[in-house]
Amino acid sequence: MTEVPVRDPRDPESFDRILSSMCTEPHPAARAAAERFLASNPGDPETFQSIAAIEAETVAALGEITGLADPEGFVATGGTEANIQAVHAARNRAATDDPNVVVPESAHFSFRKAADLLGVELRSVPTDADGRADVAATSAAADGETALIVGVAGTTEYGRVDPIPALADVAADVDARLHVDAAWGGFLLPFTDHEWHFGHAAVDTLTIDPHKVGRAAIPSGGFLARDRETLDALAVDTPYLESRGQATLVGTRSGAGVASAKAAFEALWPDGYRETAARAGDNAAWLAGALGDRGFDVVEPELPLVAADLPESLFDALREEGWRIARTSTDELRVVCNPHVTREMLESFVADVDRLRE
Amino acid sequence: MTEVPVRDPRDPESFDRILSSMCTEPHPAARAAAERFLASNPGDPETFQSIAAIEAETVAALGEITGLADPEGFVATGGTEANIQAVHAARNRAATDDPNVVVPESAHFSFRKAADLLGVELRSVPTDADGRADVAATSAAADGETALIVGVAGTTEYGRVDPIPALADVAADVDARLHVDAAWGGFLLPFTDHEWHFGHAAVDTLTIDPHKVGRAAIPSGGFLARDRETLDALAVDTPYLESRGQATLVGTRSGAGVASAKAAFEALWPDGYRETAARAGDNAAWLAGALGDRGFDVVEPELPLVAADLPESLFDALREEGWRIARTSTDELRVVCNPHVTREMLESFVADVDRLRE
Repeated sequence: MTEVPVRDPRDPESFDRILSSMCTEPHPAARAAAERFLASNPGDPETFQSIAAIEAETVAALGEITGLADPEGFVATGGTEANIQAVHAARNRAATDDPNVVVPESAHFSFRKAADLLGVELRSVPTDADGRADVAATSAAADGETALIVGVAGTTEYGRVDPIPALADVAADVDARLHVDAAWGGFLLPFTDHEWHFGHAAVDTLTIDPHKVGRAAIPSGGFLARDRETLDALAVDTPYLESRGQATLVGTRSGAGVASAKAAFEALWPDGYRETAARAGDNAAWLAGALGDRGFDVVEPELPLVAADLPESLFDALREEGWRIARTSTDELRVVCNPHVTREMLESFVADVDRLRE
Repeated sequence: MTEVPVRDPRDPESFDRILSSMCTEPHPAARAAAERFLASNPGDPETFQSIAAIEAETVAALGEITGLADPEGFVATGGTEANIQAVHAARNRAATDDPNVVVPESAHFSFRKAADLLGVELRSVPTDADGRADVAATSAAADGETALIVGVAGTTEYGRVDPIPALADVAADVDARLHVDAAWGGFLLPFTDHEWHFGHAAVDTLTIDPHKVGRAAIPSGGFLARDRETLDALAVDTPYLESRGQATLVGTRSGAGVASAKAAFEALWPDGYRETAARAGDNAAWLAGALGDRGFDVVEPELPLVAADLPESLFDALREEGWRIARTSTDELRVVCNPHVTREMLESFVADVDRLRE
C-alpha cells in the first residue's frame, strides 16, 4: 500500500487532496502579483490607473489565446459573471421581447442563474451519446426568438468540447449570437486540434477563466467580445467615478485577480501552459487506465477530466479519508486533473480506492 | 506652502493621494489573512471546508454589527452584488408579475444595474433638501406592485443616512420589503445615534461591505437577510459541487475576501472601528472647515464625506497634480475621508488647493 502522508485537512492552503476543484493553486508569479495589488480596484479605473492599464493588457492577452486580435472585454469575477453577461448582452440586443437561449444540457449551472436573473427562457437540449452538444437538436430548438446559442469548450462534468463551428452555423441560420464557455478549457485547448475560439468560427462572446487552468489567483475570470457594441449593451453610467460606463456585473473589483492573470500569462504563455496541458492529459489518461483496470466504467477523457462509476459507499469512504472529490449529476466520480494534481496524488488516491473497496 | 513629497503615482499600493475611493487600505491582519486564503474558494464549500466555516463566522459578525442575532447571508463580491441580490430576492418573492422598486435618487448606481438585469421598474424619488430619502415622496411612489423599498445608510455622494424606521413604515403600508444599503456606512454607523439596522426597524435585507470602512481586502461585501426564505429565493442547484444551492450571484469566490473580513473584525470590533470613525469624522470636519474658510460652498458632512463646490479648472488642476478626487453628479468635489486618509494628506491637499487656485 502506498504510504499516505499525514496532512491537516483544515490547512486552507493545502491542495494535496483536492481532486474536485475547477480552480487550482496560483503560479508563484501570480501569487506575488496578487499580493502587490491586493488593495487596488480596477472597477474605479480613474483612481487606480495602473491596474486599469494592466487589465487592458490582460484582456489583450486573453485575445491572443482565443484568436481575437483586438478584443473587447474585462476581467470578471469568474465564469459565472462572464456567462451571465453574455446572456445579458444577447438579451439587451435581441429584437424580441421574449428571447430564448439554447444551451446544451451539459452547460454550467450559471446559465440557469442567468435565465432566472434576466427573465429569458432557457432551452436545454440533450447532448449526443458522447456528451457533446447535438447540432441537429440545437437547430430544432432554435427559432426566430433565439437571442443566443451557447457552446461549451470543456464541459464541467466530462470535459467535452462542443462542435463550435457547427453551432455557429445554427446561430447564423436564426440570426442569434454565439457564446462559447471555455471557462475551464480555455488554457488547455490551444494545445489541441479543437476548433473552439473567435479565430475558428463566428463566435460573438467567450468566457475564459485565468483562475482555473490559467493559474491566476481568484477572482480572475475573463469575458471577451468581438465587438464594442456588446460592452455598450451592458454598460451603466457611473456617477462619482471619473470614468465611463461599467460593463461588469459587479462594481468594486479585485486588483489581485487582474494582476495575477497578467503575471501568470507572462510566466506561462505558451510553453508553460503547453507543458501543464500535456502533464494533465497524461495524468488523466493514467487515472482513467487505473480505474478501468479495476473494473470501473470510465468515461474516456477528452480534456483532463476523468469520470468513472464508483459505488456510492466507496465514494463516501474516499471523502471520509479526506479526498475532495465530486460527482456528476448522474453520480459518477469526477476527478479534475488540474495543474496542482500530481501523479503521486493520483497514486495515493488509487491506493485508497484499493484499500477501501475491499 | 506645505511640502508635498514626491511619490510615484503608478505605485499600485500607494493610497497617499486617494481621496475618491469608497475602499481603503486593508488592515495588516486582513492582508495577512487574505494572503493565506488566496487560493481557497468559499463558493465550493465542500471542497474548501475551512473557508466555508470562516464565512459562517463572518456572517455572524456582520449580524452583530447590524443588530441581527441569527443572520442569513453571505460574503459578496461587494455592494453591487449585495444590492442586486436584494432586488432579485424581492422580485422573486413578489406576488406581482410587474414589480417595481422605489429608491431615493441618492441610491447607488448598482440599483440601475439591478433593474436592467432583473426587468423591474425602478422608481427613483427625489430626496429632501438635505439629500435624504423623502418619506412622503417615497410613500406616494409606492403601490401594490412595489416589491422593495430601498433606504441608504451612508449615501455615496453626500454620506447621508435615510430615515430607515419611517421607510419601514412605508414598506409595511404597501406590503413591500425593505432593503438598507449600508455598504459604506455600515462600519461607521454603530458609533452614531442613527437608526439604520435590523435592530432599529423591520429591515428585511442589508448591504454592508467589509472591504470599505471594515478594512478587509477586496472582494469582501456583505449581504444579510433576516430570514432563510430570502436566501432560498436566490438559490440555484449546484450539480457537481457537493453542497446545496448557491445564493450568490457569482460562483467561485475569493477566500481572501472572506478571511480578511473576519480578521479585520477580530482586530477592530468595536474599539478599533470606533477610533477609525472618530478620526474620520474629525478629518471631515477639518476639511469642510478649511474649504469653507476659503469661500467654497461646502455641504455639511454627516458621515465623513465632504462635498464642496470647486471650479472645474481647479478640480482638473488637482487631478493633474496626482490627487485622486471625484465629483458628485452635480459636479461638486467629493472627498471620502476613509481610514487611509490622514490629516497630513488633507493638509497637503488644501495646500495644493491654495497654490493652484491662484
